[in-house]
Amino acid sequence: MKAAQYLGARRIAYNEIPDPVPGPGEVAVKVAYCGICGTDLHIFHGSMDSRVHPPQAVGHEVSGTVAAVGPGVTGWPVGTPVTVRPLDNCGNCGTCRRGYTHICEKLRFLGIETPGGFAEYWVVPARLLHRLPDGMPMQLAALVEPLAVACHDVRRGRVQPGETVVVNGGGPIGMLVALVARKAGGEVTVVEINPFRLAFARELGFKTINPKETDAAEAVREATGGSGADVVFEVSGSEAGALAITAMARPRGRIVIVAIYPKPVPVDLHKFFWKELELCGARVYEKEDVDAAVALAASRELPLEKLITKVFPLKELQQAMEYPESAGNVMKILIQCTEE
Amino acid sequence: MKAAQYLGARRIAYNEIPDPVPGPGEVAVKVAYCGICGTDLHIFHGSMDSRVHPPQAVGHEVSGTVAAVGPGVTGWPVGTPVTVRPLDNCGNCGTCRRGYTHICEKLRFLGIETPGGFAEYWVVPARLLHRLPDGMPMQLAALVEPLAVACHDVRRGRVQPGETVVVNGGGPIGMLVALVARKAGGEVTVVEINPFRLAFARELGFKTINPKETDAAEAVREATGGSGADVVFEVSGSEAGALAITAMARPRGRIVIVAIYPKPVPVDLHKFFWKELELCGARVYEKEDVDAAVALAASRELPLEKLITKVFPLKELQQAMEYPESAGNVMKILIQCTEE
Repeated sequence: MKAAQYLGARRIAYNEIPDPVPGPGEVAVKVAYCGICGTDLHIFHGSMDSRVHPPQAVGHEVSGTVAAVGPGVTGWPVGTPVTVRPLDNCGNCGTCRRGYTHICEKLRFLGIETPGGFAEYWVVPARLLHRLPDGMPMQLAALVEPLAVACHDVRRGRVQPGETVVVNGGGPIGMLVALVARKAGGEVTVVEINPFRLAFARELGFKTINPKETDAAEAVREATGGSGADVVFEVSGSEAGALAITAMARPRGRIVIVAIYPKPVPVDLHKFFWKELELCGARVYEKEDVDAAVALAASRELPLEKLITKVFPLKELQQAMEYPESAGNVMKILIQCTEE
Repeated sequence: MKAAQYLGARRIAYNEIPDPVPGPGEVAVKVAYCGICGTDLHIFHGSMDSRVHPPQAVGHEVSGTVAAVGPGVTGWPVGTPVTVRPLDNCGNCGTCRRGYTHICEKLRFLGIETPGGFAEYWVVPARLLHRLPDGMPMQLAALVEPLAVACHDVRRGRVQPGETVVVNGGGPIGMLVALVARKAGGEVTVVEINPFRLAFARELGFKTINPKETDAAEAVREATGGSGADVVFEVSGSEAGALAITAMARPRGRIVIVAIYPKPVPVDLHKFFWKELELCGARVYEKEDVDAAVALAASRELPLEKLITKVFPLKELQQAMEYPESAGNVMKILIQCTEE
């Protein structure tokens, strides 16, 4: 088969490699589309070489159909439309035993620690498949994985109807969090400094604040009768964001850390004390979040297609990985891995 | 009456001032004992001059008896033993309306923003009184207020029987948190660098870690099968503590911020993401926490008296405030305000 393999920092090769064969309990998925995640870009930039094993296809935001099943696999006829929950947990660590299998202490992230979806076929454990409704467009289905992230984030934030929600950072995940939080009944404001993303958020109907022009915390307090927002999602990963979240949340407000902070940053712990704030981290998703994302995407109630900026063929993965550097106005890029 | 009034940084005067008269809805409490809180020391050091109004008696950890009642007050016969929940909330702000009256946005802290208990009599709203059981020693009763802080902290941390608990910081509040967490069924380790406090914690039966001698996070992980502690209370207020809490907590572990951090400090937000940690602030107490503290103190199940390092008469409040500077081995100092 063809696979677009990561070789090392900034180098992808479009190679012919042996077809992978599903082992016991495994399934080969014929990949329709595979989205480029921020993590894939980190890998491309050479920042995650300790976790990947070049030459290796990465990628984990997959839609496709069952192409072949390994020994012992039942219930997944060839041709079944599927997406993959790419979290292979150990089942034995303290965290798995507590039921939090998605943050298993020995988690293997399929497509990072193992070969991924930027290829014609992807072999994965059958237990990690999620069935897609018949007729669901495969481009839309490739958004289920990042949408599941947003479903998990909003569930962690316990957004209730009528609550005021701030999404700090309007990239692809921030925008999905905003959409899911609004679907949950939240009144959502997106805080962002990038003009393209600000315009994009407004086009989706969100209120926006540009903290380079307006004191965001002050604006949020003014819009909430002085108290602050009920829920704040930190999706920017910026030092400014880490300080802004505690200023924007109301007393007993909830803050969800979605972004990845590469190093410790100053946080106003006094505001946690003073306002009895709550903060939690949210990482990937649980099975029920993927189920929710499939149902939500299938419902067509969210304008998910608007997030797809561009589709590249598999052989152009190198150019697709470089694309955000030349064109700033990018939300989500999909790679078409096989013809439909 | 006699009152020990704060005049300005490091100056207390023992003055004769007019007896306060309880107004409508108010009660005059004859103060038996009033404990010195860390906040009182901050005031004495001149760090809270924006909130106090010298000459002013401060102090809020009071035990005493009802001495007189104002118009409209019923149910509080003269002589009733009481303690005071010194939180005068507005009842109208968004936070009061949500039911979190103890962190009211316009909270007046009695004994800080208003005259306090380092005096023979203290006039307070009757609605803030808590009845003490007959015969409860008044020195013990003066510990109810800080014990209520610990009850609130442990409730915020949702400590369950059998859970591993780390208390980072072994001062008076840390020690009370450790005692209440153990009473709730937690297996408690106290992390502290001060030799007196370490010995004190061991005397109370707690495991201890000195992070100057041992990698505390490593030791906690070793003691918990590699996962980390279920609940971590940050009571040190140190920069090292702010980094240690995320290293010591297990995946999905809970962290409670009890300490007061005067400025933002580096926090490892990546660990919140990676381990889906939860953090919440805990400030003062709610009514039910004071009720719980009264019952717990009355039960005599905790060795609370051991925390009382020294008792000074009211006229020596200046010396009592200075005492911790000369004698390092201090837990709790009480001021005897009237003869029993």
